[in-house]
Amino acid sequence: MSAHGPIEYGDASVAVRAVFDDIKLTRKVDDVNNFWKYLAHDPQMLKRTWESVKEIMRPGALDALTKEMIYLAVSVTNGCGYCIASHGAAARKAGMTEQMFGELMAVVGMANETNRLANGYRVPIDAAFDR
Amino acid sequence: MSAHGPIEYGDASVAVRAVFDDIKLTRKVDDVNNFWKYLAHDPQMLKRTWESVKEIMRPGALDALTKEMIYLAVSVTNGCGYCIASHGAAARKAGMTEQMFGELMAVVGMANETNRLANGYRVPIDAAFDR
Amino acid sequence: MSAHGPIEYGDASVAVRAVFDDIKLTRKVDDVNNFWKYLAHDPQMLKRTWESVKEIMRPGALDALTKEMIYLAVSVTNGCGYCIASHGAAARKAGMTEQMFGELMAVVGMANETNRLANGYRVPIDAAFDR
Amino acid sequence: MSAHGPIEYGDASVAVRAVFDDIKLTRKVDDVNNFWKYLAHDPQMLKRTWESVKEIMRPGALDALTKEMIYLAVSVTNGCGYCIASHGAAARKAGMTEQMFGELMAVVGMANETNRLANGYRVPIDAAFDR
Amino acid sequence: MSAHGPIEYGDASVAVRAVFDDIKLTRKVDDVNNFWKYLAHDPQMLKRTWESVKEIMRPGALDALTKEMIYLAVSVTNGCGYCIASHGAAARKAGMTEQMFGELMAVVGMANETNRLANGYRVPIDAAFDR
Amino acid sequence: MSAHGPIEYGDASVAVRAVFDDIKLTRKVDDVNNFWKYLAHDPQMLKRTWESVKEIMRPGALDALTKEMIYLAVSVTNGCGYCIASHGAAARKAGMTEQMFGELMAVVGMANETNRLANGYRVPIDAAFDR
Repeated sequence: MSAHGPIEYGDASVAVRAVFDDIKLTRKVDDVNNFWKYLAHDPQMLKRTWESVKEIMRPGALDALTKEMIYLAVSVTNGCGYCIASHGAAARKAGMTEQMFGELMAVVGMANETNRLANGYRVPIDAAFDR
Repeated sequence: MSAHGPIEYGDASVAVRAVFDDIKLTRKVDDVNNFWKYLAHDPQMLKRTWESVKEIMRPGALDALTKEMIYLAVSVTNGCGYCIASHGAAARKAGMTEQMFGELMAVVGMANETNRLANGYRVPIDAAFDR
Repeated sequence: MSAHGPIEYGDASVAVRAVFDDIKLTRKVDDVNNFWKYLAHDPQMLKRTWESVKEIMRPGALDALTKEMIYLAVSVTNGCGYCIASHGAAARKAGMTEQMFGELMAVVGMANETNRLANGYRVPIDAAFDR
Repeated sequence: MSAHGPIEYGDASVAVRAVFDDIKLTRKVDDVNNFWKYLAHDPQMLKRTWESVKEIMRPGALDALTKEMIYLAVSVTNGCGYCIASHGAAARKAGMTEQMFGELMAVVGMANETNRLANGYRVPIDAAFDR
Repeated sequence: MSAHGPIEYGDASVAVRAVFDDIKLTRKVDDVNNFWKYLAHDPQMLKRTWESVKEIMRPGALDALTKEMIYLAVSVTNGCGYCIASHGAAARKAGMTEQMFGELMAVVGMANETNRLANGYRVPIDAAFDR
Repeated sequence: MSAHGPIEYGDASVAVRAVFDDIKLTRKVDDVNNFWKYLAHDPQMLKRTWESVKEIMRPGALDALTKEMIYLAVSVTNGCGYCIASHGAAARKAGMTEQMFGELMAVVGMANETNRLANGYRVPIDAAFDR
């Protein structure tokens, strides 16, 4: 009762359909992911989020694969189950091999470990790194 | 009294010096960062951490720059001040331009935002992503 | 063997029943949530936690709805699935409309993003905000 | 070398000045905070972030004060020092009294505690909260 | 203006002094830490927090040292600078040697690493661990 | 396609079997947990992680039970469902009683609460704790 279900294309408003259409066109997919179907409960948020994601994930100084791997690294660090599944799939689609995934995970794991070592040993920032 | 200071090379044990020497040789630097000087209070941890970092950060399926950027993305997500400073410097040394840094930050910011949108809307994993 | 199940009223000790009764009376509900049935394995923790929650969530300078929305915002940030479900329901019961939920999620998402931008750009605190 | 300083109005590009002007006009302030002066290194991110913040923080179903308090609650949970300082100031400017701040902190503290109790006791979601 | 300073004993209300006195008596110290002097801005929160901490940190099935080390492990994981400093000192006062600290940090680091490996590899819970 | 399943002993390479054998021998168990069966997709990570875990969890200045409880406290704080289940079981196997678990959870909950109180009140580190 109190929770949301996905909004499918057939039930969506004109504004929501316009965003769904742009996602499908941009990503060359037949349907949008659950993430977008749930955000569709708030059409303004759907539009703003999609436009930001579209702008940010476009290849630039970093290519699409590197961007997806960074997205995945953050999602793994935060423990977001949905995001690990969806951006894992997106990274693989963009070319991430299993060996690359293994190396990404090794870096993510080590960074999460050494972040805490730096905290716990209260390591001051080296003058060379500081402003 | 209750806290640690850095252990400098001149005051270090033979075991610690051996690690410091390997870090300096591997990274082609004149001195090691504070991080290692603080871990040196526990020579076994110093050795194990360095050997893991050395193995993990070696170029493989991912190049050194990509690995440093993933390290930085995790450190920014966790808010580790020391690690942001040191791995920001390392990523720049490995070739990260300011434009690349800007794009990395945009992805990190957006991932941290959409991780919470997925949480809050309780979005179920799409069948296509699931096992 | 190693895990806990819920402790139902009929199986509860006198001390646990007293807390359950007070929760039901205060919240005008017929049964307590799973959260309390699991904490009941430690009657002292159950009592202390309930008394703190009761005192903290009582309307004061902030009304009940605002308090529930803050609770939900924290739970979404931490990715606590149980707490998102239970405090989402509680906030809706206290009057949160879907539009309010959408705006809450927008703020939570943006705060999680800009928290990382501030970290990554190492922004120093403005003199005006500092002591 | 490797780090950024703030970009002041006098040194800013036309595109950056346009955003700074809009921030000053919208917020009725003489100068923008350090946060914006640092983001100005990436004019596209500056513009996108400001436009999102402006849209999200505008009073709607939730008033400005409630939105600032939610922002602060997230920042405290994440331990972002800059954001706690700046959004604490913003919330006070929007009308948060010290008593309201105290109650906000009590809820934030309790939510962070009970989020972990729910995790550790592995409490399953009540059927009533679930879809 | 917008921030708090510490409330010293000489400036404290009767209610605050009563808590300060109990802290000093219980911990056999001449003055309370900054943490309590800041919470004193909200006497009700000061009293509730102190009474909970006092009850929780009292030796029981776990001794005082083990409890302080768990407190420190959480604070390091969360990156709370104040708490790392204060609970590091408290753990040392309760008997934590430098060797124990080193081993604690090794476990905290490894747990933060393997938590992410379990997330990223999406490891399902073994039937043996599940209810 | 894009996701991993567990690698069972019968399907494992010689290098993976060698690690599995050492885990079974060290822990005196008939089979390894899912965690190791998933890491087995990256034999180098499997070996490195196991060797670090084996070295770190060996009784030293801290006994095996204390180490497992610290591991569990971190996992609860991070909300890692798999790790809470597996290290909860491991801690119980090492001797953690339900009363000890209750006290551990009380400390973890309180630390997560007071970490945020220290953040939000922006409490400066006492001179006595500082270097």
